[in-house]
Amino acid sequence: MIIQPIIDLVAICAKKGIHHAILSPGSRCAPLTLAFARHPDIHARTISDERSAAFIALGMAQQLAKPVVLVCTSGSAALNYYPAIAEAFFQQVPLVILTADRPPEWIDQWDGQTIYQQEVYGKHVKKSFQFPDDFSVPDKSWHASRMINEAINLSQQYPAGPVHINIPLREPFYPKTGENFQFPEDPPQFSQYQGSLTLSEESLKKLKNRLQQVNRILIVPGQQRPNPKIQTLLEALAKEKKAVIVSDVISNLQSEKSVNFHDHWLGNETLHDQLKPDLIISFGMSIISKSLKLFLRKSGASHWHIQEGGTVRDSYQQLSRILNCSPTNFLSWLTQNLPAQNPTYQNKWNQLEENLRTNLPLIFENQKFGEYQALYFLLKKIPPFSKIHLANSMAVRYVNFLGKRNQEIVCNRGTSGIDGSNSTAVGCTFTTKEPVTLITGDMAFFYDRNAFWHNYSMPNLRIIILNNHAGGIFRIIEGPSSQPELEEFFETRQKLSARSLAAEYGFTYSKAENRAELEEGMEKFYAQSVQPKILEIFSDSSSNLSILRQVKKEIQSLHATTFTPPEA
Amino acid sequence: MIIQPIIDLVAICAKKGIHHAILSPGSRCAPLTLAFARHPDIHARTISDERSAAFIALGMAQQLAKPVVLVCTSGSAALNYYPAIAEAFFQQVPLVILTADRPPEWIDQWDGQTIYQQEVYGKHVKKSFQFPDDFSVPDKSWHASRMINEAINLSQQYPAGPVHINIPLREPFYPKTGENFQFPEDPPQFSQYQGSLTLSEESLKKLKNRLQQVNRILIVPGQQRPNPKIQTLLEALAKEKKAVIVSDVISNLQSEKSVNFHDHWLGNETLHDQLKPDLIISFGMSIISKSLKLFLRKSGASHWHIQEGGTVRDSYQQLSRILNCSPTNFLSWLTQNLPAQNPTYQNKWNQLEENLRTNLPLIFENQKFGEYQALYFLLKKIPPFSKIHLANSMAVRYVNFLGKRNQEIVCNRGTSGIDGSNSTAVGCTFTTKEPVTLITGDMAFFYDRNAFWHNYSMPNLRIIILNNHAGGIFRIIEGPSSQPELEEFFETRQKLSARSLAAEYGFTYSKAENRAELEEGMEKFYAQSVQPKILEIFSDSSSNLSILRQVKKEIQSLHATTFTPPEA
Repeated sequence: MIIQPIIDLVAICAKKGIHHAILSPGSRCAPLTLAFARHPDIHARTISDERSAAFIALGMAQQLAKPVVLVCTSGSAALNYYPAIAEAFFQQVPLVILTADRPPEWIDQWDGQTIYQQEVYGKHVKKSFQFPDDFSVPDKSWHASRMINEAINLSQQYPAGPVHINIPLREPFYPKTGENFQFPEDPPQFSQYQGSLTLSEESLKKLKNRLQQVNRILIVPGQQRPNPKIQTLLEALAKEKKAVIVSDVISNLQSEKSVNFHDHWLGNETLHDQLKPDLIISFGMSIISKSLKLFLRKSGASHWHIQEGGTVRDSYQQLSRILNCSPTNFLSWLTQNLPAQNPTYQNKWNQLEENLRTNLPLIFENQKFGEYQALYFLLKKIPPFSKIHLANSMAVRYVNFLGKRNQEIVCNRGTSGIDGSNSTAVGCTFTTKEPVTLITGDMAFFYDRNAFWHNYSMPNLRIIILNNHAGGIFRIIEGPSSQPELEEFFETRQKLSARSLAAEYGFTYSKAENRAELEEGMEKFYAQSVQPKILEIFSDSSSNLSILRQVKKEIQSLHATTFTPPEA
Repeated sequence: MIIQPIIDLVAICAKKGIHHAILSPGSRCAPLTLAFARHPDIHARTISDERSAAFIALGMAQQLAKPVVLVCTSGSAALNYYPAIAEAFFQQVPLVILTADRPPEWIDQWDGQTIYQQEVYGKHVKKSFQFPDDFSVPDKSWHASRMINEAINLSQQYPAGPVHINIPLREPFYPKTGENFQFPEDPPQFSQYQGSLTLSEESLKKLKNRLQQVNRILIVPGQQRPNPKIQTLLEALAKEKKAVIVSDVISNLQSEKSVNFHDHWLGNETLHDQLKPDLIISFGMSIISKSLKLFLRKSGASHWHIQEGGTVRDSYQQLSRILNCSPTNFLSWLTQNLPAQNPTYQNKWNQLEENLRTNLPLIFENQKFGEYQALYFLLKKIPPFSKIHLANSMAVRYVNFLGKRNQEIVCNRGTSGIDGSNSTAVGCTFTTKEPVTLITGDMAFFYDRNAFWHNYSMPNLRIIILNNHAGGIFRIIEGPSSQPELEEFFETRQKLSARSLAAEYGFTYSKAENRAELEEGMEKFYAQSVQPKILEIFSDSSSNLSILRQVKKEIQSLHATTFTPPEA
């Protein structure tokens, strides 16, 4: 039977600019599946493992900055979406999740594939909707189309995020021969025009007064997508030495003028007094560097956070003012209103940065082969302005140590799980012809291997796996490394190599256990191909630890020659 | 630092009879990990993919009929547990889920691996607890130990199910050298004695009166574990022709005296008038047979459901009386109080059953090779009284067609998902030395391939994969098979074979594409081994459909010779 409101729903999605849907197989969801598959303006793909499906949708929506639709059948299918939904919620990525359900009268009656789907994503969606289950009352069709409009609009309002529509469906699910399957030409739509928030003159005056009293300003952008306008504004501020810009790699706002190597030295407390800011200005989401976080938490500075609305996170325990406006607007005002500063403070940061920039290459050239050094060389070979996906957690930490990137950096730091990084990168490949490089560890890679279990081509996917046969981070952080349970219960040693997976899916595969193999492996890595390519770097987790320590030690000896600890 | 209440928690678990924990790696959960790994009476295993970890725990708890503990770190780890938790909830399997969390003050502050964990499993756990986050007030230790007791007790009360304790933990997580790590000898415990519910004399008298008025009684046991007492009672009722016992394979209550082939003929509506009951008596959870369900829904009979408490599901839309007592107690009373019946009704059912029992072997001997016939032969070779795990959904449907089994049948029919059947079977192997045979399709198998991604041995695991490179059910059910989207969006054709996975993990592998290979493959399939064995049966989904149709046709022609439709 044709359920026209479902066909209308899909037409509304298309009209509101949604052009991608990720479906998973099922019978309860068939009316949705058919309508999405048949709509001429929507590209529908089917992914069998719903956990991967949802991360693939996330990977697409991250790039498109538009909602992607997810469709699954009733029952536990919806639960497999949940990790990606939480990631989308905290990473502020718009998703429209459509879960088919049994009608209310058949919930919890021992029928198959039935759970409690209403509001099942709890606080991890912006809103949960329940679609009407019959349309005998005419207003119900209005309710249905209004709901789709509301949900899609909401998913894109600040902060963007996932919305859930639970859709009860009764049999029969399939159109009969001769039934008229037709999309409405002009489905009910209310489009949304987004304003841009600017602070009042009065507020700005107060802030300007306050700015007169500070002269050690740190601007700390959190995770966000590349933003050329903000990039230009920050560069101007740094160039004029009005503020220090400290940029983690996930901020996508690193430049020649920003401080990018801070993660190497901010752990050194003897430097803190000289680097402490009066004022921290932040915007965007999270940062990676634990040293930077701890430094800011102990700084005693004021902290202004710029955010368009919603609850503000006091990540540095210093929050003093919330600026409810667009970061671009505020930073633009700041470039014009921030008085010139005494450059001593900026110079200190820049000196440390410069020191690292000069010396890091020498340090790495002479290290033993391991994942850290391999990444150092690899990163130079990744095509400029392409996309790099970093898995949690060693991959993103290493890359954050290795300085400025001009590629877009994507990393699931909403929940910082290891669970969906392959799939997120796969989703990215569905949106671009540029190379997409995934840098991941063996644990994250095999956890999410079902990312590749589908029939769609990903010719631009390149995967670099740091395989130390374990969760290497547990040897590196203090605590677990001194417990007898380290290898079984923390590192969780595992034997797999990606060679077998590559053969299974027909991916091109090469491996590197030393620098020569690495160079060889990279040589044609970015040459065009029909299939994805994997480069698997084997190293040993205890040797990786000693390399990390050695690099740290050499960097510390650099500081000794640069800085005299104030109390010495 | 030692967090003594965490060590006490583990001591209480052990004292209350929990001897198995499935941990997943993480740092936030380290105090729990260390305490579970170190407790002498608890066998802790670590599984990296939390989705599999939770299904493995479910597979263990199903067999042990005791709670198994799950421990994961904070963030999306907890969400990956969810599919198995919903399955445990609807299948009434006890689990104690311990999720490490950041302390309340650090929730939603852009710190890594932080979501909203409190009550995250919604209605799919029996209760959610929040563990104290500091112990400066002495009563908090009492609260903590009371909570563990309450949670474990609750998980085992009727209906058994999962309970969740969210545990906020602050750094430092690890004991320092020399710190005293000691389990209390006598942790606070309140043990639970479970009574047995019996109906009052007055109620029984009423029921007895009602029983005088019926003479077509159908007893329909739903899914449950094998129960020799109930089995004996049902056999007695059937032998004396006091009732017809209609048993799906997941009831684990099939016998020579019960009707087991009903799924073959109950779809034939011309038989219904002769088979309609006056009274349906049911107990246990769901049934598989859709024909049986539809037949009962249209029967117009009274329906008594025996259940110790909680909400009763009106699966057959005929519910008239709820008997809040133990099924064993009631059935025992029934054997003594049910008057002798006119055996005509019983004879009709038995005649149909007998007809199938005699003819099915002939029908199968002459079929073309395909998954249906392969299963017919395979099932004869599975060691008696071992364990068979059936995946959703074709595997369990086929086996339900194929008559009585004396092995224990396990199948995740709580939510009927395809998502965790490998893992559930793996969990089962951790509890028994008997062979555990998993019968699954290619979709369910590859969906849950991470079930095998760990370092524990499973020498008794045998896996039979019905690989038709697709979700074969979509070709079989009406509706999708006539849509142009069948192959891409419903069947979701996939290319993998398990050969590669077997090589990856060192499993013994053989395949069968015809009857000779099948016989050969089965020859030493149950011989002892160090590693699991896989037998992969390749068949074509359209040929499987035609075999299913052919079998159905031949069975229908049997009825024509046995029964004359009443109106003809």
